[in-house]
Amino acid sequence: MRAALFDVFGTLLDVYSVQALAERLFPGHGARLAQTWRDKQIEYTRLRTLSTRYAPFSQVTREALEFCVAALALDATEEKLRALLAQYERLTPFPESPDALESLRDAGVALGVLTNGDPPLVRVALDNAGLLPLFKHLLSADTVRAFKTAAPVYALGPQALGTPANEILFVSSNGWDAIGATWFGYTTFWVNRSGAPLERLGTAPHATGRTLSDAADYLISRLR
Amino acid sequence: MRAALFDVFGTLLDVYSVQALAERLFPGHGARLAQTWRDKQIEYTRLRTLSTRYAPFSQVTREALEFCVAALALDATEEKLRALLAQYERLTPFPESPDALESLRDAGVALGVLTNGDPPLVRVALDNAGLLPLFKHLLSADTVRAFKTAAPVYALGPQALGTPANEILFVSSNGWDAIGATWFGYTTFWVNRSGAPLERLGTAPHATGRTLSDAADYLISRLR
Repeated sequence: MRAALFDVFGTLLDVYSVQALAERLFPGHGARLAQTWRDKQIEYTRLRTLSTRYAPFSQVTREALEFCVAALALDATEEKLRALLAQYERLTPFPESPDALESLRDAGVALGVLTNGDPPLVRVALDNAGLLPLFKHLLSADTVRAFKTAAPVYALGPQALGTPANEILFVSSNGWDAIGATWFGYTTFWVNRSGAPLERLGTAPHATGRTLSDAADYLISRLR
Repeated sequence: MRAALFDVFGTLLDVYSVQALAERLFPGHGARLAQTWRDKQIEYTRLRTLSTRYAPFSQVTREALEFCVAALALDATEEKLRALLAQYERLTPFPESPDALESLRDAGVALGVLTNGDPPLVRVALDNAGLLPLFKHLLSADTVRAFKTAAPVYALGPQALGTPANEILFVSSNGWDAIGATWFGYTTFWVNRSGAPLERLGTAPHATGRTLSDAADYLISRLR
């Protein structure tokens, strides 16, 4: 196993890092807005995929935000919405992200991302986080116009790397993404940052840890 | 338009009517358990459909409950779980359900349900609610081993009724279900009980009201 693919949003970059700005723009509602926005964003990716009504992640993200400010009855202006959306290009990387990725790269592991995000957004977000140069492969759901956990998205990995899925470590902090990748056939590592219970979907990731460093250690120990 | 199909869970039957028992079993946590259980149940239907890992709604409902009691760190016994699951067969119908459905039947409208539920569960739940004799068609996602909003599920309606989708009124209280049916081609009525904002998915149901009576009035006014 000499290749690893990473989910981006929630795994390398902290989607809840929008919360501080959300709180400044909508005092008292920052945490709730950040949480419901994320949930709705994921929900829309699934509904659009189930109904073959694909729209790029950036659009879905905006539409989810528009729903959430309406649902929470927040006094949203176009300026505030734009400011929040712009934060999606400046999400904070998790603190261990650079070191964990560099240790893998230095060990000779080919690194890539496999993300729901559309390429322009992913590229700028990774660049702003200082992580872009670490990745050889930027694989986006946009290529197949469907979102995770649909098989064509996960199939991008073996296609691009020329390696069977079970010889690629797929790393995600989203439990459902780790399960989806397991179903597809990857070797999987769930970065369970919050200590959440395992999703009850009849399978489990091959390994679990708390941080990206745990994922890096896991893969490096298997290289020897 | 002389036919109407109804979603069951959340539309005819109140899925939150489990809350009272949940509160008795887990004091202080009934509302939160009822809400997270419902959300997780829907999430699992979508993930399993996206990944073509179908399991019947009854199983998904149980697995969602198991996740939620773990996530909320509740002291769940097998007996408590069974008691809650049994409630799913005895969900309370919304108060206007019988009258609204009877008025449509009396007006000569062919009535059916189009549900994610598997047939044994749906049949007993509708029977316990006193609604079963009103329906000519019981259409279940189980037939196609996929859940809403996948097109094969909605396609059951025109197939069974021998009528184009746009000549069937599809009624749901779940905004995403009303949208999914609209995408598919039905004429749609969203029973927006809670006054929720419209989902931002680029389309809208053909009509919206607050109760099933509004849906019945809408269809009857179009029969004249």
